[in-house]
Amino acid sequence: MSRNTANAFVPSGVSSGLPEPPPAPDLAPWPGPLERARPLPHHARRGIVLVGMPGAGKTSIGRRLAMRLGLPFLDADTEIEAAAGLPITDIFARYGEAHFRDGERRVIARLLAGPPIVLATGGGAFADARTRAAIHASGAVSVWLQCRMGTLLKRVAGREHRPMFLNADPAEVLERLMVARHPLYAEADIVIACSDESPEVTTRRVLDALDAFRPPAKLPVTLGERSYDILVGEGLLARAGALLAPVLPARRVVIVTDETVAPLHLPALREGLAEAGFAITAEITVAPGEASKGFPTLQAVLERMLAAGADRRTAVLALGGGVVGDLAGFAAAVALRGLPFVQLPTTLLAQVDSSVGGKTGVNLALGKNLVGAFHQPRIVLADTGTLTTLPPRELRAGYAEVAKHGLLSGEAFWHWCEAHGPALVAGDAPALVHAVLESCKLKAAVVAGDEREESAEGGRALLNLGHTFGHALEAECGYGGSLLHGEAVGIGLGLAASLSARLGHCSQELPGRVIAHLQACGMPARIADLPREFSAEALLGRMRKDKKARDGALRFVLLRGPGEAFTAGDVPVAQVERLLRDEGCTG
Amino acid sequence: MSRNTANAFVPSGVSSGLPEPPPAPDLAPWPGPLERARPLPHHARRGIVLVGMPGAGKTSIGRRLAMRLGLPFLDADTEIEAAAGLPITDIFARYGEAHFRDGERRVIARLLAGPPIVLATGGGAFADARTRAAIHASGAVSVWLQCRMGTLLKRVAGREHRPMFLNADPAEVLERLMVARHPLYAEADIVIACSDESPEVTTRRVLDALDAFRPPAKLPVTLGERSYDILVGEGLLARAGALLAPVLPARRVVIVTDETVAPLHLPALREGLAEAGFAITAEITVAPGEASKGFPTLQAVLERMLAAGADRRTAVLALGGGVVGDLAGFAAAVALRGLPFVQLPTTLLAQVDSSVGGKTGVNLALGKNLVGAFHQPRIVLADTGTLTTLPPRELRAGYAEVAKHGLLSGEAFWHWCEAHGPALVAGDAPALVHAVLESCKLKAAVVAGDEREESAEGGRALLNLGHTFGHALEAECGYGGSLLHGEAVGIGLGLAASLSARLGHCSQELPGRVIAHLQACGMPARIADLPREFSAEALLGRMRKDKKARDGALRFVLLRGPGEAFTAGDVPVAQVERLLRDEGCTG
Repeated sequence: MSRNTANAFVPSGVSSGLPEPPPAPDLAPWPGPLERARPLPHHARRGIVLVGMPGAGKTSIGRRLAMRLGLPFLDADTEIEAAAGLPITDIFARYGEAHFRDGERRVIARLLAGPPIVLATGGGAFADARTRAAIHASGAVSVWLQCRMGTLLKRVAGREHRPMFLNADPAEVLERLMVARHPLYAEADIVIACSDESPEVTTRRVLDALDAFRPPAKLPVTLGERSYDILVGEGLLARAGALLAPVLPARRVVIVTDETVAPLHLPALREGLAEAGFAITAEITVAPGEASKGFPTLQAVLERMLAAGADRRTAVLALGGGVVGDLAGFAAAVALRGLPFVQLPTTLLAQVDSSVGGKTGVNLALGKNLVGAFHQPRIVLADTGTLTTLPPRELRAGYAEVAKHGLLSGEAFWHWCEAHGPALVAGDAPALVHAVLESCKLKAAVVAGDEREESAEGGRALLNLGHTFGHALEAECGYGGSLLHGEAVGIGLGLAASLSARLGHCSQELPGRVIAHLQACGMPARIADLPREFSAEALLGRMRKDKKARDGALRFVLLRGPGEAFTAGDVPVAQVERLLRDEGCTG
Repeated sequence: MSRNTANAFVPSGVSSGLPEPPPAPDLAPWPGPLERARPLPHHARRGIVLVGMPGAGKTSIGRRLAMRLGLPFLDADTEIEAAAGLPITDIFARYGEAHFRDGERRVIARLLAGPPIVLATGGGAFADARTRAAIHASGAVSVWLQCRMGTLLKRVAGREHRPMFLNADPAEVLERLMVARHPLYAEADIVIACSDESPEVTTRRVLDALDAFRPPAKLPVTLGERSYDILVGEGLLARAGALLAPVLPARRVVIVTDETVAPLHLPALREGLAEAGFAITAEITVAPGEASKGFPTLQAVLERMLAAGADRRTAVLALGGGVVGDLAGFAAAVALRGLPFVQLPTTLLAQVDSSVGGKTGVNLALGKNLVGAFHQPRIVLADTGTLTTLPPRELRAGYAEVAKHGLLSGEAFWHWCEAHGPALVAGDAPALVHAVLESCKLKAAVVAGDEREESAEGGRALLNLGHTFGHALEAECGYGGSLLHGEAVGIGLGLAASLSARLGHCSQELPGRVIAHLQACGMPARIADLPREFSAEALLGRMRKDKKARDGALRFVLLRGPGEAFTAGDVPVAQVERLLRDEGCTG
């Protein structure tokens, strides 16, 4: 095994005048008793980095971990001194801390770029933002050994000769460092709260945590300087602070949520934020439901957040479903002409649809979403754990948008939907994660190609598959909950497929497959499944007023098959009317 | 004189199979009686293009114009036939109209790229958007000979053999063409309404119009895909349609104005729009004054424009001062997630400041401009003719921002201000145009470098020179008009200069110069000039709450001299307090 030991510590343009660095240490696998080795957990295959305060046990736990996993153990400070050919105290004294941190980051990045190791880092390393970013970028798993003051004090006893404790009370020094660094250490992938237990016990707990560790799936949304990631996985709210800190300008947020969601998920979010030292400038809880998505609530939210002291570096977090996301996102877009924004969707509908793409806004009496802004979030955390708290009917309704994405995406995802949809609506966790991921992938790709819905044909417009019919059904029923948006979209998918088949665009079998699938998922799939009558005349009137209608002509997204959608502005009204009557509408 | 007569008419990849084109006609200057020649007007130095309907007299007037101006006369259709070696009817028949228009555009562009000529164009040339753009881009002056039906009918009598009139009633053909083309011809630089007068009389009227023609000054604001022009000049509202059409997606607008401005300038705007065939979807008139810049009026404006049928291609026009511009601009930013927007500022303050830079928004009870968006206009028409209708006090107050730009710009513009400010506030038209132009130039450059006010130091923040003091004075007086924004800024400029001098940043003479200049312009220039007392304590309290204050520290823009401004976040409060007391504030 060879590692590049080029001297990372000589500032460019400065002649080192230092002695040659000593040869690199022997990095052959630790010669421990191999019968005790455990297999390297999959997600630790790029290495393990231990971070924490002086006295947290990074070296003693690190050596034990390395032995158990059959990996080399390295101490970053030792490697730095070797690379520089100088003790760390001398590097500080000669070149200053900024230079030391630059060199430290380069040495750590070099060590992590090779075969996997267990690496113990100096207490200040992970407190440096760029070093944290380098460690995250390396793919190694970072583990924070989190200790209380009492434990640390006992362990640093005897280190009073170290420069950091010279002429100072160790407790005071540690207290000051803990306040400053704990919020930064919290950005580690894994946090192990250590007590006075034996190093063997802690080591076993770290090994168990490594086995259990599942990093959130990450989906990039590519929009130039407005690009961001969607993270999908369980338990993300509890780690919100660690996940948000790298993408926000300050650890200061306003949370907007609703009365249904707040008791379920606000406690986890608060703790996740506190762990990384976030201040919550305001928590604003609105009434649940579409009625909150209007000017009066918007103004109240803006006044609350600004009166509480939100400034241009305060991020707005939307914790909830589509209404909260649209409302909070629009407030973020216009408060002080634009604050950073984060989506924390807690419904299936929001996770697979409304939280992705940057559309925000409120309703007017004249119609839905007539006022708003394109305001992209800095990050989306889709915590699939929140979906287990959804009422079954809402989960099913949200699934309609997943099925829509299946039809838009192609045979592969559509077949997956047919196979796994029924398990998903019953709450199957892996199915939920897969559906959210695939839906976000599709939507992110569409949005990246047509951010502001300006494409004349195709583009974002294709996401309206099923929506021309769906919006009309929804508007006829009012927005009181008798027909949920997703349910309307589901029926709309069947109608769009039927219309496509009647116009000769797709196979005659497709409509039946779509309808059968939605029925298998326990959803109303046809107009006749609804407990009321609809007039074809009234539905056509609604369609003509649709925001996307142009010059009174009806616009539909039609299908040639799964993955082959297109917009059509020339569908004969008579065909649509006949379909609606055949589906049981009155004249 | 030699002109490139390469065959622009053979489609690429198509073998022409045509005979060689005839030699180019002799383009030596028209051998008319030279004693009757008039000097070529400066703005026609790149040539003159005549546009209009068949029978409008483009050839007969064109020949006379050319003779008088000592320029060659050319007929575009003749040149096209020469280039193609085919009669126009054959080009149409063989290759279709789209191909003819492409070739026509290339021939016209080639003719206008040479020495100046008088060019008569075919009736359809200027009706083609890309040909219009090419003619405008050439720098030649376009003149529309606008005739009524009766006149045209008489003149086309005898042309019934032409293809356009074959088997049709000439009146019907002309009527149809007039409806389609008049709004497009209106984009010509000069419109001459012709009657049955003799060609000699019309020619003289065209010559007089060319002498009087002053194209608006054009300032580009460079913001990537959001770049736009500011046009400055007299009479722009009366030509609004012609000036807006090239930069808007459709000839459809909503006008937002206030009750003071509407009777003064709405009639001219309506006519200017009608000339180019614009439809006015809604005219929305709000109450004048700061009270309209809030949520209730914003919501009412949005509901009005959307209920009237504004769609994503309808532009919002702000006709008025800063309040109307900010309100209408914000409504445009959020209606349907963003409509095209146009600023038509009618106050000096709006022309030199608020209409440039894309800041839009409304006030909350908590403070001014707390909610808004960056939404760049598609174009700004600063019609300096509207400034003559301003009350003198408002003109003077607006001048404070000009003086601010003088101080920010450097010695040249600041000296100009000192020399011409008094004439400007007395209404001197050339001084107004120069001041608007120079102010917009400065502001456009600053905005181009820092569109969203994100620069940590300098950038847009420098435009707040005088504003930390000014906002505090204004807030203390309320916003009822006892102290105008510009007056507060003027006093703020003197205080900023005084503070800079006391801190040793600029010469001890500068504050006196600033104050003397503002007094020479008839403005209150010091706190003592105001008819009320101020408490230093209260003013400092206001400054601490300023949107730009950070962590409670006062931020000022200070001066090292004209053209040398910088932001300072470390000004000792005691120094500011002493200055305020020395200027007569109570404790």
